[in-house]
Amino acid sequence: MTAYLDPRSGQTWPLEAPRWRGGDGQPLLLTDLPGITRGEIEPTAPGLWRYAAALPFLPRQPIAMGEGRTPLLPRRLDGFEALLKCEWLMPTGSFKDRGAAVMLSLLREQGITAVLEDSSGNGGAAIATYAAAGGMRARILVPESTSPAKTVQSRAAGAEIQLTPGSRQDCADEALRQGNDPASGFFYASHNWHPFFLQGTKTLAYELWEDLGFEAPDAVVIPCGAGSNVLGCDIGFGELLRAGQIARLPRLYAAQPAHCGPIAREALGLPPLPPRPTMAEGTAIAQPIRPAEVLGALRRSGGGGVLLEEAEIAAASLSLARQGIYVEPTCAQAVAALGKLAAAGSIRPGERVVVILTGTGLKATPRYAEMLGIGPV
Amino acid sequence: MTAYLDPRSGQTWPLEAPRWRGGDGQPLLLTDLPGITRGEIEPTAPGLWRYAAALPFLPRQPIAMGEGRTPLLPRRLDGFEALLKCEWLMPTGSFKDRGAAVMLSLLREQGITAVLEDSSGNGGAAIATYAAAGGMRARILVPESTSPAKTVQSRAAGAEIQLTPGSRQDCADEALRQGNDPASGFFYASHNWHPFFLQGTKTLAYELWEDLGFEAPDAVVIPCGAGSNVLGCDIGFGELLRAGQIARLPRLYAAQPAHCGPIAREALGLPPLPPRPTMAEGTAIAQPIRPAEVLGALRRSGGGGVLLEEAEIAAASLSLARQGIYVEPTCAQAVAALGKLAAAGSIRPGERVVVILTGTGLKATPRYAEMLGIGPV
Repeated sequence: MTAYLDPRSGQTWPLEAPRWRGGDGQPLLLTDLPGITRGEIEPTAPGLWRYAAALPFLPRQPIAMGEGRTPLLPRRLDGFEALLKCEWLMPTGSFKDRGAAVMLSLLREQGITAVLEDSSGNGGAAIATYAAAGGMRARILVPESTSPAKTVQSRAAGAEIQLTPGSRQDCADEALRQGNDPASGFFYASHNWHPFFLQGTKTLAYELWEDLGFEAPDAVVIPCGAGSNVLGCDIGFGELLRAGQIARLPRLYAAQPAHCGPIAREALGLPPLPPRPTMAEGTAIAQPIRPAEVLGALRRSGGGGVLLEEAEIAAASLSLARQGIYVEPTCAQAVAALGKLAAAGSIRPGERVVVILTGTGLKATPRYAEMLGIGPV
Repeated sequence: MTAYLDPRSGQTWPLEAPRWRGGDGQPLLLTDLPGITRGEIEPTAPGLWRYAAALPFLPRQPIAMGEGRTPLLPRRLDGFEALLKCEWLMPTGSFKDRGAAVMLSLLREQGITAVLEDSSGNGGAAIATYAAAGGMRARILVPESTSPAKTVQSRAAGAEIQLTPGSRQDCADEALRQGNDPASGFFYASHNWHPFFLQGTKTLAYELWEDLGFEAPDAVVIPCGAGSNVLGCDIGFGELLRAGQIARLPRLYAAQPAHCGPIAREALGLPPLPPRPTMAEGTAIAQPIRPAEVLGALRRSGGGGVLLEEAEIAAASLSLARQGIYVEPTCAQAVAALGKLAAAGSIRPGERVVVILTGTGLKATPRYAEMLGIGPV
């Protein structure tokens, strides 16, 4: 039976009772699932729901809005042939829709009707939107300093936006407090904490496997903040390996900004550094919740970490835009990482390398205006 | 042989020589194409390119970025079961990608390397982006009053943004002037003028036909400015009828803002009115280029026009957003039109009705902020 799992102690909890962390406040994963074969793909299901048989259980009514089945575009980048996985081409404009759609569908199946999240970015927009689509109430906590423009998408979806005093960390602490308080009436459906979110991001691995004619790529270069796409690929490709569908795991590389890259630093054997502001704001996570698990995934795969300077991130953003690929600088850094990995010989010509692009440039208009020198917009 | 056609005089011109209007400056269409059967769909081609056999000729290298194959979501709206065709889930955030991808692919095949367009909206963004993806130069003319925020996406794609003095009409006139001047070095690849653009929008009809199990819907409700989706549906479903793939044309309904709805007004037998500003800015086309053809398409189909007040457009926008569908007010008006058509008995319960949603809400953040009463952002 699938169960919630504390990967550090091995302790488990039954899946039936909704829970988002362990008894000591630790983050959880799920026990290993067996994975599915290509024959278990449901060809008529929309988007990522074709891989629903790989989920821990089936929601009778998935909250589906066309998430998944994103384009995989072959492109020559810095002289290297790679495949761009356009995870930004999603209903809310980011890869977070995989996690939000699956997590909220499973939680709704378990009887949850009101969800709490803390994020003024893509995570908050995805939770607010899928909650709306699923007829669930949503409360999104954001720091009181958050510009109103950042929450328009979530507010339009009908979410209650709660401005919390203090820093982003204070906001996360308040979310934890409310999440632990049964009287709040909200279940903490955090894109960072809940293991069901990773059940959504793991469908990226299944999709790449199908995109590539039911084979794994040689390497996947992933923009990494908290690491939900690294863990999603680790879980998904791990299941495919167990199910005998692929011969080996692809190497996973985590691209992080040099200004805030704790996971990549540790992967590279570098000492910690205090975080500095970065234009790759979606990956500016100074204290990720599952650092050991993300590092373990990188190492197990034979991949590693890459750190990108701001100038490299900006150059990659503009270079992609000049090819018609308009994405957030947060994910353009993965293209910069590809160049560095190729230059270092870590990835080699002839290998099948996928670069994950996670967020639409339409949410980064002020950044692009700045990079283009056309002033504040 | 397919040729350019002046639908009013019947005059034709050979397709081989690039041309965007007739000898007297009139807009052109193409002569009738035979349409394709389901056996001619190319199942492994990406997005709309699965219908490439329906195009007047095949580009050796389509400029493809994942456009087409958009979600069709069943939703209950105002008590009426309808199907939402999410044409906003496209690489640049709007349905214009169908037209831009096909038009520029065909023009590039004919040797065009530099294109001119006039639009500060979705059309300009799509032309700039697909030109970038296809290695073509692009010049986009916009009125000098255009806010820089509106052109960031096109500038990021490397397009030359030319600010032109005067009104939107002055800008269109300048585009016509440059388009007629061989010395400009740019071919006028206007999303409004060039008939190849409609060859792209017609793939919407093919896609709906396949979405619905190779049948036509009973009715399609379409946000209408210049009418490229009305004409695309007319051309596409017309071809399918000729090819014996559907039994009859769906009724086409054009939704236009009451503040600027010349086509719907004429369809309803109402006298012209001077245009007023509308939040449905993408459909605020006071002088469409092919009014007779659009009206003919509505009438031939047995459909018609619907006019929407600003309050109705705002209410439909927020109502959709509350269900997780975050789109431009420009297209939300089609949902308001659905309600009116149902109330009038023009569409009936049990009919298969498709509502076309054409642009992402991520480009309408200031509008939503206003509607939500959270002030300028």
